[in-house]
Parts: sequence; structure tokens; C-alpha cells
Amino acid sequence: MKKNRDGAEAKAKIPESTIRRLSLYLRFLQEAHAAGQATISSEELAERGGTTSAQVRKDLSFFGSFGKRGLGYSVPELLRALEGILGLDRSWKVALVGAGKIGSALISYRNFQQRGFVIRAVFDTDPEKVGRRWGSATILPDAQMEEVLRKEEIEMAIVAVPAQAAQRVVDRLVAAGVRAILNFAPVRLRVPDEVSLRNVDMVLEMEGLSFALAERR
Amino acid sequence: MKKNRDGAEAKAKIPESTIRRLSLYLRFLQEAHAAGQATISSEELAERGGTTSAQVRKDLSFFGSFGKRGLGYSVPELLRALEGILGLDRSWKVALVGAGKIGSALISYRNFQQRGFVIRAVFDTDPEKVGRRWGSATILPDAQMEEVLRKEEIEMAIVAVPAQAAQRVVDRLVAAGVRAILNFAPVRLRVPDEVSLRNVDMVLEMEGLSFALAERR
Repeated sequence: MKKNRDGAEAKAKIPESTIRRLSLYLRFLQEAHAAGQATISSEELAERGGTTSAQVRKDLSFFGSFGKRGLGYSVPELLRALEGILGLDRSWKVALVGAGKIGSALISYRNFQQRGFVIRAVFDTDPEKVGRRWGSATILPDAQMEEVLRKEEIEMAIVAVPAQAAQRVVDRLVAAGVRAILNFAPVRLRVPDEVSLRNVDMVLEMEGLSFALAERR
Repeated sequence: MKKNRDGAEAKAKIPESTIRRLSLYLRFLQEAHAAGQATISSEELAERGGTTSAQVRKDLSFFGSFGKRGLGYSVPELLRALEGILGLDRSWKVALVGAGKIGSALISYRNFQQRGFVIRAVFDTDPEKVGRRWGSATILPDAQMEEVLRKEEIEMAIVAVPAQAAQRVVDRLVAAGVRAILNFAPVRLRVPDEVSLRNVDMVLEMEGLSFALAERR
């Protein structure tokens, strides 16, 4: 069951928590590299990833042998290795479906582009929005989605549409060849096993916090 | 170590994955209730939560005994119970720090208010933004943060400031009595054990997707 709903989790033998920590290690390595630091210890990486140095070594061991005992890791080498592992040594063509406030926040988010996530197409159903420039893309009518996705060979998509529209949008994206989807609609979506899906659900996170506060009373 | 970084995870004996599913079950119950459905099976809830009916029963068993064998759960009863468990049978006063695009998306997000998360104060350092109305709040200068948080007895905060400013903001929130924080800055933050912290990190989610795509090649 779970497999049908979250391809990303089901596919990888690597724990999702490991992948999340790799992203955090990478950010730290980039800062260290920019600051001219040549080597880094597993303790320093652990500090940044909110974990232990044993876990850092375990996380990295999934992907090969890094670092030298007592010397730590070479910053530029580990940096390049993690970029390769995370698929960040290249750029990705991304489509954004839904030109609302969340979409607008994403478009203007510098970190997205810096990581190689290039928003190549934006789609919306609102005729008032169609034709406007958003960053380097022009908002296109929803009806052109399949044609543009195929022509541009877009592999990743961000879904920022209302909950009731999300599953239909995702079905169309998958049919047009999209293989990875970041969903902001507050609903669980179904995707085939070969499609990776991640959800960002802000209300759900707030409810986790209100649970914690309510429990403490 | 983990304890210092993510109070929400460390405090609760209940798995975070259970809390997330409770939120999903609740949404389904609200729809069922609105549609006039009187009872619901664990299979139906499982379908919505992306899990199994055994897991549904286990999730609910943390909080007491619900439902009758063969009859399923009473929709209105389980609805009220989950609202109580998740702390959604009351409203919460929330502060938003950072009146940027993400903050703007949150302010206009109807689901937030509907869940009882009432944004009572918005803070920003930009003098151009101070004084503007945002929803039912007026953007206040950053310098008034402590005074307003204490006067309004605000318990929850949303941090939507740049990464380099986030830890300092969080330290000030905690010192002023905030006990739960939703962080959108792409950085791991430190909070004391008694403070709950959740992170929404969109770039990290995208990197999880690019990892999955890169791994498949």
C-alpha cells in the first residue's frame, strides 16, 4: 500500500533520514569550502546534521569509503561526492503547476536555482495569470501542460494547486513523463511505484506542534 | 544531541509518524462528517493515511479505546477525539517572523485559520513593510517582538527569515515564552528540550527527489 503512495520511500534501500542528513552535511561542506577549510571531522558533520559521528560514518558508508582515520574528510572531495550522490552535479528541469502564493515564493527562492532546480514552465488555469512572466518562465495555460512537459523533457514537478485538483494534476504529470513530484496540496496523492513523491504539508506540521503543546498541559 | 535539536521528536513517546497519520485521518473524518457519514472503518482510514488497518488501530490505541468490533468508528466521536488529541479543539495564538513571500503565502492560507492557528502578530526588520496590514495583523518592527509576544501570550511562532538570521530569532522567541516553532529557514536550529521544533525545508525535499532520480540512472 505504502509503495503506491510514496515512491521515494519505497524505492530506496537507503533510509530517507540518511538522505535528509546528506543534504545537511552538504550545506555545511559548502560553507566550509567557501571559508577555505580543507578537511572536516565526522564530529563537525554530526553537529550540523543533528546526529552522532557514528551515524555520519554510517550514512556515508552506504555510498563508499570516504575519509581517512584520524585525518577526517577532504572538504572538496566529500563535497563533490555528495553532490553526485544527491544528483546535484547537474541541473534539473522543473515544472510548477499552480501560480499562486506558494508558487510565487518558490519562484523567487534563490536557493532553488543555485541547487540546479530550474523552473522551466509554470502552468495555471486562471486566464488572468496566463502570459505573465514569472522569473525566467511565462505562465502557460493548464491545457498546454502535456505538450510542454514532453517537448521540454521535464522530469520534476512542483504541485501547488488546491487539494481537490491535485490528484488530477498529478495523474497528468505522470502520464506526460514526470518522474518526481513535490506536492504542496494538503492531500495524500497516489503515484505509480516508479514515481517519487514528497509532500510539504504546513498545516500537518502545525498540528504536530499543537499536539506537543496540548500533550504537555 | 537529537534532543536539543528537535524537541517535538524527543519529548513525545508517541511516534511522529503516528501524529502525522492522525492529521490525515482527521481530514478524512471531517469530509466524511460533512458528507453525513455516521461510521467509518479502519480500512477506510488506512486508505487515506497511506497505511494498513492494523496500523490505524495501533495509532489510535495510544490514546484509548475507539470503535466497536465489526461496527467501525463513529465519525463524530472519533472526529472530536482526534481534535482533542491534536490540540485542535481550541485556537492557538501564532506569531509570524518575516513578512516575505513564504510568510505572505501562509497568511493567506485559509486552512491555517480553519484549524485554529490564528496569526496575531507579524514582525519584520524592513521599515518599508512595517505598518502594512497583513490579514488581520499589522506588520510590527522586529524590535517590538519580545514585548508583543509576552503581552499577547503567544505560544507558537513561524520563522520565515533568511538562514543566517534564524537562530537569533529563535533564541529571542524562546526567551519570550514561545514553546512551539515552525521553521522555514534552510538551517537546523537549536532549541531547549521543552520547546517543540518542526522544519519545512523545500530545497531538502527537492534534493530527496533528485537523489531518487539520480539513483535510478
